[in-house]
Amino acid sequence: MNTNTLSVFALGGLNEIGKNMYVIQYGDDIVIVDCGSKFPDESSLGVDLIIQDIAYLKENREKIRGLLVTHGHEDHIGGIPYFLKQINVPVYATRLTLGLIKIKLKEHGLLRNTDLQLINGDSSLNFGTMDVTFFKTNHSIPDCLGIVFHTPEGIVVHTGDFKFDFTPINDDYADINKMAEIGSKGVLLLLSESTNAERPGFNPSERIIGKKIEEEFRKARKKIFISTFASNVHRVQQVVDAAYKTNRKLVLLGRSMVNVVSVAEELGYLHIPEGMIIEKQDINQFDPEEVAILCTGSQGEAMAALSRLSTSNFRQVEIHPDDTVIFASSPIPGNEKNVTQVIDNLLHLGANVIYGSGTGLHVSGHACQEELKLMLTLMKPKYFMPIHGEFRMLHKHRSLAESVGIELDNIFIMNNGDVIEITGGEARQTKSVHSGHIFVDGLGIGDVGNVVLRDRKLLSEEGIVIIVVTINRKNGELVSNPDIISRGFVYRRDAEELMQEVNELVIKKVAELQGVNRNQQGIVRQTLKKATEQLLYVETKRRPMILPVVIEV
Amino acid sequence: MNTNTLSVFALGGLNEIGKNMYVIQYGDDIVIVDCGSKFPDESSLGVDLIIQDIAYLKENREKIRGLLVTHGHEDHIGGIPYFLKQINVPVYATRLTLGLIKIKLKEHGLLRNTDLQLINGDSSLNFGTMDVTFFKTNHSIPDCLGIVFHTPEGIVVHTGDFKFDFTPINDDYADINKMAEIGSKGVLLLLSESTNAERPGFNPSERIIGKKIEEEFRKARKKIFISTFASNVHRVQQVVDAAYKTNRKLVLLGRSMVNVVSVAEELGYLHIPEGMIIEKQDINQFDPEEVAILCTGSQGEAMAALSRLSTSNFRQVEIHPDDTVIFASSPIPGNEKNVTQVIDNLLHLGANVIYGSGTGLHVSGHACQEELKLMLTLMKPKYFMPIHGEFRMLHKHRSLAESVGIELDNIFIMNNGDVIEITGGEARQTKSVHSGHIFVDGLGIGDVGNVVLRDRKLLSEEGIVIIVVTINRKNGELVSNPDIISRGFVYRRDAEELMQEVNELVIKKVAELQGVNRNQQGIVRQTLKKATEQLLYVETKRRPMILPVVIEV
Repeated sequence: MNTNTLSVFALGGLNEIGKNMYVIQYGDDIVIVDCGSKFPDESSLGVDLIIQDIAYLKENREKIRGLLVTHGHEDHIGGIPYFLKQINVPVYATRLTLGLIKIKLKEHGLLRNTDLQLINGDSSLNFGTMDVTFFKTNHSIPDCLGIVFHTPEGIVVHTGDFKFDFTPINDDYADINKMAEIGSKGVLLLLSESTNAERPGFNPSERIIGKKIEEEFRKARKKIFISTFASNVHRVQQVVDAAYKTNRKLVLLGRSMVNVVSVAEELGYLHIPEGMIIEKQDINQFDPEEVAILCTGSQGEAMAALSRLSTSNFRQVEIHPDDTVIFASSPIPGNEKNVTQVIDNLLHLGANVIYGSGTGLHVSGHACQEELKLMLTLMKPKYFMPIHGEFRMLHKHRSLAESVGIELDNIFIMNNGDVIEITGGEARQTKSVHSGHIFVDGLGIGDVGNVVLRDRKLLSEEGIVIIVVTINRKNGELVSNPDIISRGFVYRRDAEELMQEVNELVIKKVAELQGVNRNQQGIVRQTLKKATEQLLYVETKRRPMILPVVIEV
Repeated sequence: MNTNTLSVFALGGLNEIGKNMYVIQYGDDIVIVDCGSKFPDESSLGVDLIIQDIAYLKENREKIRGLLVTHGHEDHIGGIPYFLKQINVPVYATRLTLGLIKIKLKEHGLLRNTDLQLINGDSSLNFGTMDVTFFKTNHSIPDCLGIVFHTPEGIVVHTGDFKFDFTPINDDYADINKMAEIGSKGVLLLLSESTNAERPGFNPSERIIGKKIEEEFRKARKKIFISTFASNVHRVQQVVDAAYKTNRKLVLLGRSMVNVVSVAEELGYLHIPEGMIIEKQDINQFDPEEVAILCTGSQGEAMAALSRLSTSNFRQVEIHPDDTVIFASSPIPGNEKNVTQVIDNLLHLGANVIYGSGTGLHVSGHACQEELKLMLTLMKPKYFMPIHGEFRMLHKHRSLAESVGIELDNIFIMNNGDVIEITGGEARQTKSVHSGHIFVDGLGIGDVGNVVLRDRKLLSEEGIVIIVVTINRKNGELVSNPDIISRGFVYRRDAEELMQEVNELVIKKVAELQGVNRNQQGIVRQTLKKATEQLLYVETKRRPMILPVVIEV
């Protein structure tokens, strides 16, 4: 990057939901915003997690001044352990966010060697040529920050994830006046999140959820199970309050629920009356109407508490007929099938299940269209770059910006790696730096790539047929009957006949090949592969992966 | 089944969406309603289609009097060719439904040997002990019927799929008065569809879509692409009308669109002004504002016209900047990701894309809660069996029925195969007949089962490692170096090292096994499998399928 140039780009978060990472660079000073992970979808078969390719940062590691983290959600902190193993820089975050980061670092054995710096909405930092200040925002987790970069070129604002809630739980107000002040000073470039850019209107306050939860708690006659995101501490607070008001003890189920609640309580973000939490093994000491169970699994995750409860697969806790199960959540796109399966299972158990968009038991944490316009109006940026969203969300966010007066030519819809350079107050989209995704699979980071995924996809749809032939090195004759083995292909009595046909074909082909140069094993393999492929396609209209193994003895 | 007993059960359609098939039997007379297929979800890897297990019907084939088809959607007709290949009985359906069935029978070479019987809302049939009459309903395809079985025990009504539309396109009115008359006579048992039982309210009329389509057509300045289900003939009619009013020629893209439109027009369900349809190769003879393209692919199906257009992969037709693309449809649950990917691609091409629930460009074809209550109220059945839906939909439909006065004890939520028997006017859920699903995969019907799917799932998530060892039959020594081959597992330079480790382990294990009885190949395979599994799990935390092949020479 040029010395007197301000460069802004993303290494993750554009044209996708997840793995957020944004880079602000002025000359030799690089500051990174967020380091999230992304959950794989069905096209990334078997992959556990997706993180950013940080090749650019590794090449410029001596310029990196720090990693600023806007809040504690996985898509903003999930990549931190993998990042720090490669680039060890100070991490700046608020108290709750740091608490959640620490859980991760502990799991990866990184806690001792990381420089963690506590900040809050009033902090002011200096990173060489840049000063950085912050403003508090509302979201679906407490202690969120927007970031203000005071650069020699002007002010760059990064909103983080946000919404506006004028009546937040625990008086956790956003700094709207501060946002307006920043806007009045003049913002050169705004980066604002786009997750809900397609959704009209303005989010209702989180506070209305509390009333609905309390209503459902008052109606319930037996045990109550309620599920939400563990990190939505404000909602958890409202569950605690509803349980307290209706004289129910509270049980926490699921590892992340127990972890997050204990961190949030310890740090003062969550207030739980003493003696209210009981252990799951003590549930039976109370009448059903004296107990509420707050659990993970609102997204239908197979291993989470609620899924296991729904299939009567949870030790020491059972859902009985007329128990109430409340989903204080919406399915994230892609999770609908898992969630509805859990609901079906719960109904089969005879539970009274409260779910669906009509219940008023969920509000989004992301700004809807009117809130996005409010942010744009407060900041009045010269240049605008919609971030964090799939293409159509960025696209819609551009229309919203245009509608409140931002010039269309000053709005940059970019790809990960695309760089905006600003010099002399003028912004241009110039080059691209290397970007990409890295798969985390088991212990491996980056060892599963597109070839492996392509193979997995083929295997998953068509299966595999393995042909093993043992050939006499000297004369090219078969030493024994070929072995034909299939997995994931067909399975029935007819399959034997089919495999017998393949067997005969292989014997015939090997005989035909006796003349060819025996050093060219490749030709033998190719011939067997092709012939088998053809036979199987004609017979079954399927194309399994065919793997010929030729052994010479 | 007993001679003087009325038996009612489903062989498909309960606790699922798709593969509808219901059976009404009195003594030795069996009448079947619908024979649909179901599209596989991601758990049925690589399977093309799912149909019913009709073992019960095959055992009782001489009792089957006919197959009645309520309407022409895939989940009601998609299984017919596979069914008729096993059980050849007369098929009764309305004109459009027969037209669509014929397309299928032709593809399967069954057209000549099938006894197709044309019926309509006024038809009256006799099947031994049962008389059957019909009533017209509204749905998202024309020519739909509900069915009335006049049995010695009383009247059984099957609604088929339906909604109420008081201002239908083409004056295609439902027989509401007839429904009321049937109800007044006294209905013993009602089978009513449950797809939208979770959705409150009453569907708006299909007619409002036409106005919205016309509005969008008037706004568009360049080419218009509009996508909807080919079978929604009324919506297609409204597209035709909008194109006509705005002076645009119409192009049809996609095999099912061309097929269905030609059948519907030929049979008089669709009225297209002469000269209005042009061929795709003639598009460029017109200005962009003189052309509208009606295409398949509203569900983001990879091979359908719109997906291919969105990736500039369609011969002779291109989407240009400022062309308008209209989704006159909603994504079916499970298709959201594919649809949004197509939208993203279209926006990348610079198209103006009209999509989403706020556009008013889609209404459902299935009765919402108030419509379901209206049907229940018109029919006033003594017994009620909610059909066609996942468990929570059947469950919700039960609550709706209860709310309009049906006794809870008289409502039967059943599984496929569960039988209601009615004698002396009293219904009881008694036994179960065999039911299940059959996978159609390529040319194979039923040759892909759970073992194959389990293998495909494992292969898709973890890949496969194949170990080939060649052993001297006499002394159990390795004849050559083992072959270690992996697919879908890891792929990188480290992988070589890992495979080398496996290699060494295999050599060691074979040496250890030299003492065991060489006839017990199974022990060699098991030992190699276990040892390799362990090594790979420790090194990678993954569990690929391990396939040892032992060859003795």
